[in-house]
Amino acid sequence: MMKQKLKIIKIGGDIINKKDDLSSFLTDFSRINGPKILVHGGGNRATEMAKNLGLQPKLIGGRRITDKANLEIVTMVYAGLINKNITAELQLNNCNAIGLSGADANIIVAHKRIVKNIDYGLAGDVDIVNHSTMQLFLENNLTPVICAITHDKKGQLLNTNADTIASELASAMVKYYDVELVYCFEKNGVLNNINNENSVIEKINSKKMQILKEQGVINEGMLPKIDNCFYALQNGVAKVIIGKPELIQDKNLKCTTLVL
Amino acid sequence: MMKQKLKIIKIGGDIINKKDDLSSFLTDFSRINGPKILVHGGGNRATEMAKNLGLQPKLIGGRRITDKANLEIVTMVYAGLINKNITAELQLNNCNAIGLSGADANIIVAHKRIVKNIDYGLAGDVDIVNHSTMQLFLENNLTPVICAITHDKKGQLLNTNADTIASELASAMVKYYDVELVYCFEKNGVLNNINNENSVIEKINSKKMQILKEQGVINEGMLPKIDNCFYALQNGVAKVIIGKPELIQDKNLKCTTLVL
Repeated sequence: MMKQKLKIIKIGGDIINKKDDLSSFLTDFSRINGPKILVHGGGNRATEMAKNLGLQPKLIGGRRITDKANLEIVTMVYAGLINKNITAELQLNNCNAIGLSGADANIIVAHKRIVKNIDYGLAGDVDIVNHSTMQLFLENNLTPVICAITHDKKGQLLNTNADTIASELASAMVKYYDVELVYCFEKNGVLNNINNENSVIEKINSKKMQILKEQGVINEGMLPKIDNCFYALQNGVAKVIIGKPELIQDKNLKCTTLVL
Repeated sequence: MMKQKLKIIKIGGDIINKKDDLSSFLTDFSRINGPKILVHGGGNRATEMAKNLGLQPKLIGGRRITDKANLEIVTMVYAGLINKNITAELQLNNCNAIGLSGADANIIVAHKRIVKNIDYGLAGDVDIVNHSTMQLFLENNLTPVICAITHDKKGQLLNTNADTIASELASAMVKYYDVELVYCFEKNGVLNNINNENSVIEKINSKKMQILKEQGVINEGMLPKIDNCFYALQNGVAKVIIGKPELIQDKNLKCTTLVL
């Protein structure tokens, strides 16, 4: 039997920082037919909030080093402010959104990241996605809106990379759906020349990725995202796309499609 | 056919302010057999956060006057920080909690309060509890943890009194369950003499309430809570109790039971 399609869209901080762009995206997102999941990052609101409270955020390799005070801030900003405002706006658009962290209904269990030499603090790497609970929501026409906070099932919340959450979710939902994963960010896709928006590489397979890595076209900032894309493909996700948020309704917009 | 029992417990700010008391309560709450819902207030964390950010919170008649900046704070603190930490701790206790605001799955729709002479700002009065969605969660062994943020289905989040949310939820769930509503606060119940913890009035009916109001035993602070209790009873809630959080496991602890 053919599986039903499920779209998982991840939006990053750049769009969350711009109220009008976010509204426009949420209207487009609401118009997607069938089951869908939104995963969102945090943007600069958490960094701003930390500054306003006199805290200094620390980043290593694009990942926030999360001490207790910073975990409180990301929990407030991601799971509270951003998640609930997105949910309310989707409800306005008649999309029955349900905002969730990984702790809610135990949907994403993670463990504290341990990497030698770097203490990431209260940052989590995903262990389990409870796909059957996600499926319960989807089959009841609820649209999960997932923020980048997970838990360890031992009472500890953990800050978790939103790209990784999207990839893990997509991989887990393959059990029930023909999954399409879309990473939205500020560019039209992977660019051959970072200064030329028209230089989108329309298709990247594993072999091409190796070449682009060696050429330095895919560099440090882009690499974790691309790794997440291939992880999802290796786990059976049918289609993975990187591009601008507008691509979810504008079929003519250029973007990068990844294939194994 | 006999309806199944549903317990709805509301905890206030005083317990949320004390980490150890909260943990102890959450352990007790997790041990309640059968379907249950937790409704929580915000405590002084929102007020502290507002102060740390240089904002002055305003209260009239125990209700926060919510401007845009203060709504952002209560959304962060109630729906983010407090709600997700409670959820994670319940998960530790093997209670499959799901933290929700009224916007999530559209469970509580409210409208902006309009009372002549007082502009409550972005404060909401409850219109609709989507009981069928609540029922979906409960029959799937999920335990909703509800914070005091609702929405108007027009994209606006609203700050809403947690006592009222508990009463409205209890009233709505009567459709499916034999509902017991418990308001936990810092005293053993309604006291004849506010300085004597042993002066608990063990039973209050409508007639007794009128007398206590006239005597000034039930005064301004207690009145809205008592009104919420009778509202629930009038809507068919089987049992309404006011007392200390410990009463949910300690059957010998004195408390106040309200009856029509």
